[in-house]
Amino acid sequence: MIKKSPLAPNFFPELPVIVGVEFATAAAGVKYIDREDVMLASISPGSTIAGVFTRSTTRAACVLDCQSKIGGDMSQGAAILVNSGNANAFTGVAGQESVDRICTAVAASLSLPTSAVFTSSTGVIGETLPDHKITKCVDSLTKSMRGDAIANAAKAIITTDTFEKGSTASIVVSGKTVHISGIAKGSGMIAPDMATMLAYIFTDAKILQPELQALLTDLNNKSFNCITVDSDTSTSDAVICAATGTSGVDVTRNEVFAKALKHVMLDLAHQVVKDGEGATKFVAVEVTGAASDEDARKVAMSIANSPLVKTAIAGEDPNWGRIVMAVGKSGAQADRDRLSIWLGPHLVAENGWVAKGYTEKTGTTYMKKRNLVIRVGLSIGSATTTVWTCDLTHKYIEINADYRS
Amino acid sequence: MIKKSPLAPNFFPELPVIVGVEFATAAAGVKYIDREDVMLASISPGSTIAGVFTRSTTRAACVLDCQSKIGGDMSQGAAILVNSGNANAFTGVAGQESVDRICTAVAASLSLPTSAVFTSSTGVIGETLPDHKITKCVDSLTKSMRGDAIANAAKAIITTDTFEKGSTASIVVSGKTVHISGIAKGSGMIAPDMATMLAYIFTDAKILQPELQALLTDLNNKSFNCITVDSDTSTSDAVICAATGTSGVDVTRNEVFAKALKHVMLDLAHQVVKDGEGATKFVAVEVTGAASDEDARKVAMSIANSPLVKTAIAGEDPNWGRIVMAVGKSGAQADRDRLSIWLGPHLVAENGWVAKGYTEKTGTTYMKKRNLVIRVGLSIGSATTTVWTCDLTHKYIEINADYRS
Repeated sequence: MIKKSPLAPNFFPELPVIVGVEFATAAAGVKYIDREDVMLASISPGSTIAGVFTRSTTRAACVLDCQSKIGGDMSQGAAILVNSGNANAFTGVAGQESVDRICTAVAASLSLPTSAVFTSSTGVIGETLPDHKITKCVDSLTKSMRGDAIANAAKAIITTDTFEKGSTASIVVSGKTVHISGIAKGSGMIAPDMATMLAYIFTDAKILQPELQALLTDLNNKSFNCITVDSDTSTSDAVICAATGTSGVDVTRNEVFAKALKHVMLDLAHQVVKDGEGATKFVAVEVTGAASDEDARKVAMSIANSPLVKTAIAGEDPNWGRIVMAVGKSGAQADRDRLSIWLGPHLVAENGWVAKGYTEKTGTTYMKKRNLVIRVGLSIGSATTTVWTCDLTHKYIEINADYRS
Repeated sequence: MIKKSPLAPNFFPELPVIVGVEFATAAAGVKYIDREDVMLASISPGSTIAGVFTRSTTRAACVLDCQSKIGGDMSQGAAILVNSGNANAFTGVAGQESVDRICTAVAASLSLPTSAVFTSSTGVIGETLPDHKITKCVDSLTKSMRGDAIANAAKAIITTDTFEKGSTASIVVSGKTVHISGIAKGSGMIAPDMATMLAYIFTDAKILQPELQALLTDLNNKSFNCITVDSDTSTSDAVICAATGTSGVDVTRNEVFAKALKHVMLDLAHQVVKDGEGATKFVAVEVTGAASDEDARKVAMSIANSPLVKTAIAGEDPNWGRIVMAVGKSGAQADRDRLSIWLGPHLVAENGWVAKGYTEKTGTTYMKKRNLVIRVGLSIGSATTTVWTCDLTHKYIEINADYRS
């Protein structure tokens, strides 16, 4: 693993065991040597499983396969197998054949229907997946399943990530505790070589599949869909959530559970940005006063994806002119003369001009911080949003241009 | 001027005098010292003037002012004044006041109505334009107007550009020659500090204003609107075309003239890309077989703007997986299994997989070229498009992050 991101958390969190979920990992040698690169999770009968996936029209075979299975019968249980090192994307008909062989092997070993086996692959695009390296590990994987091995799973799924990503939350309902444990990988929104975003979240809560799916979709729009590293979208992104029901607590339309799940998803999403390729700054972009939710998002993403804004952040340059530019090009309704811009607590510009009392020195001092907030007030309507991004540095160019894939 | 782009043309072209147009330049000291930073062009009575401008919602005052004047009465002649070093953008009410003072000074000096005076400003955003430095030069400018000084004008309007940009074409209609001379500046689609795109094109052709406007708008969509350096859009972009009619040749709906004008506009647009901040490669992205013109453009721009594609080009890496990714994220209709990708003459991928006979070595050798063509066949419909871009290099980060504005 290359040098850890300066934005990395101090440690991997203690993730509680979710009764009904077990993990095993193996070094299959798909691409990497000397490290584990496959993880298998088994999920107990009667669990419900929801998933959200990349909207790319060039989706990988495993994504299409997962999408066809979500919402099906999981009464006999389910399994998730993930490999790193090869994305099995843009591999023609061979792609689905690899997925089928892996699902068949896992299903046989765990006595499940293949329709209850989900797979993800992350790594290089366009190379056939050597699935025999994975299938030959399946029996030993299923023999070593453990409830407390989720941290190993977090390690096996990473590619160019500089740290493993985990998050947890728990709530108490009528004296019973409900746990959530999640893991993720990702360090660009994508680098097709190595950096798809994947997340797997497990809970012992009890909730019907359609309810879980609706909740996951809603919260995904407020978490993983609100981050961007380089505006590029993976062929393989997947977020899967499994609820085993083993806590005995029904969380249908339980707002406290929704909040806890959102916390885990947002925490994992933030960790992905903090591991953004070459990132040295973690930036929240807040937009207020937009004409519509869509406009708020357009403005926020325009700022968060602008190479000129992101290089200014890297250079610790309070270049608010570039923020004005990004608002202007977003396509959202905006009025130059109503626009306000803040850097953290500092009002920088208002009414179409630099704010009275703002000095370049104030901005320069603020930009030296590691965690930044850029806030834009449009003063048009009442819609708001927040998205998260990182800066664009020499290291990003190094990772993506200087070394051959 | 910093080191010339490796993609720069060998020399600035000889631009023919357009009878009815005269130029003068001055060192007003708006921001730069030791160089000319203001150009004035006077255009003879009875000329027609068309313009296309940035669609940014945070447009500079001079852009709004130009837009309000295009299509008005130019029977007494017209003038264009451009300064570099300060964009007069996001400068509140002071912005329009500066524009008004400059227009008043030019109008008085050339005996024109202020409604026939156009201005552009390019440079830093958010700083009040010291317009007195410009207005005090106006009388000496109008006294030194020359028909053969367009090359000086090309020099006075540049900012971070590493070379001056000019282009010309001429056609013969019924034994009479029609000339076109154009100049431009720009080296990012924008760096609000210094790099708006501006172009001024002059011709002695005779054409009514509405016809010229329609032609300019159409050709702009096929030239300046088909280039991208960093996906960022300026607050100040402007393309103005003046037709003096002094050749006596009516070019209304003359396809040969339209072709010649397109040549000049496309040539200037390509020069802007070739001066893209940090550019080392000039890349044409061709899309065929799209469901609609809009889809073709979405796919082409998604590839041309993708940081991962652009860094791969910088690294001379034939990473076609990133092209697949960019097609997938574009939002256009696409079918992974019908997609074909070429690098120049080399078929790299087809039917959702790497092409038979393609070797990494072929791709690697091709990517070493300075001028590249990436072609994507969608095999869905019959719409096609071509856009032009450059690579994303360390130098771009240096220019935009390492040095403070």
